[in-house]
Amino acid sequence: MERELISHLRTLLPTNEHVVIGPGDDAAVLRTTADANIVVTTDALTDGVDFVIAHQDVVRVGHKALAVNLSDLAAMAARPVAALVSLVLPSTDGDRIARQLYEGMSPLAERFKLAIVGGDTNSWDGPLAISITAIGETTFKGPLTRSGARPGDMLLVTGELGGSILGKHLDFTPRVEEALHLHEKYELSAGIDISDGLSRDLHHLCAESGCGAVVRLDSIPVSSAADRLAATDRSGKTANEHAFSGGEDFELLFATSREVADRILADQPLPVPISSIGQFIEKQEVLALHADGTRTTLPNTGWEHHIS
Amino acid sequence: MERELISHLRTLLPTNEHVVIGPGDDAAVLRTTADANIVVTTDALTDGVDFVIAHQDVVRVGHKALAVNLSDLAAMAARPVAALVSLVLPSTDGDRIARQLYEGMSPLAERFKLAIVGGDTNSWDGPLAISITAIGETTFKGPLTRSGARPGDMLLVTGELGGSILGKHLDFTPRVEEALHLHEKYELSAGIDISDGLSRDLHHLCAESGCGAVVRLDSIPVSSAADRLAATDRSGKTANEHAFSGGEDFELLFATSREVADRILADQPLPVPISSIGQFIEKQEVLALHADGTRTTLPNTGWEHHIS
Repeated sequence: MERELISHLRTLLPTNEHVVIGPGDDAAVLRTTADANIVVTTDALTDGVDFVIAHQDVVRVGHKALAVNLSDLAAMAARPVAALVSLVLPSTDGDRIARQLYEGMSPLAERFKLAIVGGDTNSWDGPLAISITAIGETTFKGPLTRSGARPGDMLLVTGELGGSILGKHLDFTPRVEEALHLHEKYELSAGIDISDGLSRDLHHLCAESGCGAVVRLDSIPVSSAADRLAATDRSGKTANEHAFSGGEDFELLFATSREVADRILADQPLPVPISSIGQFIEKQEVLALHADGTRTTLPNTGWEHHIS
Repeated sequence: MERELISHLRTLLPTNEHVVIGPGDDAAVLRTTADANIVVTTDALTDGVDFVIAHQDVVRVGHKALAVNLSDLAAMAARPVAALVSLVLPSTDGDRIARQLYEGMSPLAERFKLAIVGGDTNSWDGPLAISITAIGETTFKGPLTRSGARPGDMLLVTGELGGSILGKHLDFTPRVEEALHLHEKYELSAGIDISDGLSRDLHHLCAESGCGAVVRLDSIPVSSAADRLAATDRSGKTANEHAFSGGEDFELLFATSREVADRILADQPLPVPISSIGQFIEKQEVLALHADGTRTTLPNTGWEHHIS
């Protein structure tokens, strides 16, 4: 990489009160809040798999690359602290791509008071690969995990699902503030962000919690994008099917006791709606409850590429 | 990725007492030592640039990918805590490559009591890209930075330099223990690991410290690999030139007062030799002092691709 580009990028990097030593040394040094634990996650996005730079705005790709990592912090109800950005740039047009990626990341970092404290910028003869590590810290409530759901708990979801491919998968705002607010104000049992699709991420939640769930299909909040997608694409899927298998909604799927769920649904404490869509059960299976009262197994379909 | 592979990899991942929540959730949660700051660094390695998997043992590539990150923690005199591993695998033979990379990383992680707490494993139609983030914590002495060298300080280096391309660049052991020991026992002013070459990394150290340096060329500890390389390669470079510009030595280059340097050189407290090779000066230039007493400007040559 050109020194000049690196100097330029450094001037763009947002900082915060956690940063003891920022970019320019062998590593960054961060001060975290006393008694907090740190929360770390990494997500890689690659050209041709998660985005197509020939057809998509690189600024939006930069936004997405950071946003998916912040969504993982949200899923743990962690407060964002810092991120490290590792770029492998194509040798052609690499400088422009790097600048535009940072242009997409910076406003999002600033919005969530996240410092970008370093990274590694390489170029090669291959396509663009972006790997970001986000670092957060737990609040006084500790982390929200995938493993705390219990039979009898209610299954709730923020926002509306499906059709993210029409735009939301690039432009979504991670539910960081929503997760922190819910986790602080109510006793949540477990949570996950919907990246692989409602169906698949519910399977993850159940597997880690050692229980099962029943989802009322007609309670799933279907987005207008899912309606549009069902009307135009050739897959033959209904809007409802897009909502439970589409993926990249980046909404929060979480478990609470029935009593807490009732309070949350009555309060509706967020700018986005919260819906109750089912309940956890003892038997380790994930079932769909249809409008006519029949039950079927909800397939474990969607993206599959995460190790953590 | 295949679920089966991910399950297999998880069983290999080393853990430690810092891990509150390991792989399997949206993010990992780590407990750090009270009063310690956290130290974070990321390095990406790519096929065709940092290694060539068609010609090199993938297990050794896995070792190297983790070792370069641990070397950055060593340069800050930080104690290793955890790492996150992000892999973008070629679609052909990706499973074997992933297993072998972890086979190379695991023994190194265990040696330094480092937990591998998660990551992201993807595949695509491109070549292998590896991005690792290492997390450490400061000791009671705080971090060792690049910016603390002062005119009059002595310039010291561990081990021997040059010719790493003959093997050491893949198989080196990062100077984690050496850095912790030196930083605990002596007052060091500044430090860096030699990844881009003595010449270039000394320029980094001087730039961040706002001073210059004079290096006595005949004091540079030249490795036998540099001699072999000088005897066989066609570049026409001397062993001494390989030692100051070769790169990927992953030795420690550090600054101390003359008094402390004298003690370190007398004590020789490490299993590897420590040599004094020069001195910091006020004027912001990096000079080479030749055996005949002449001085020339030491060129700022070597690898250039880091943002942090």
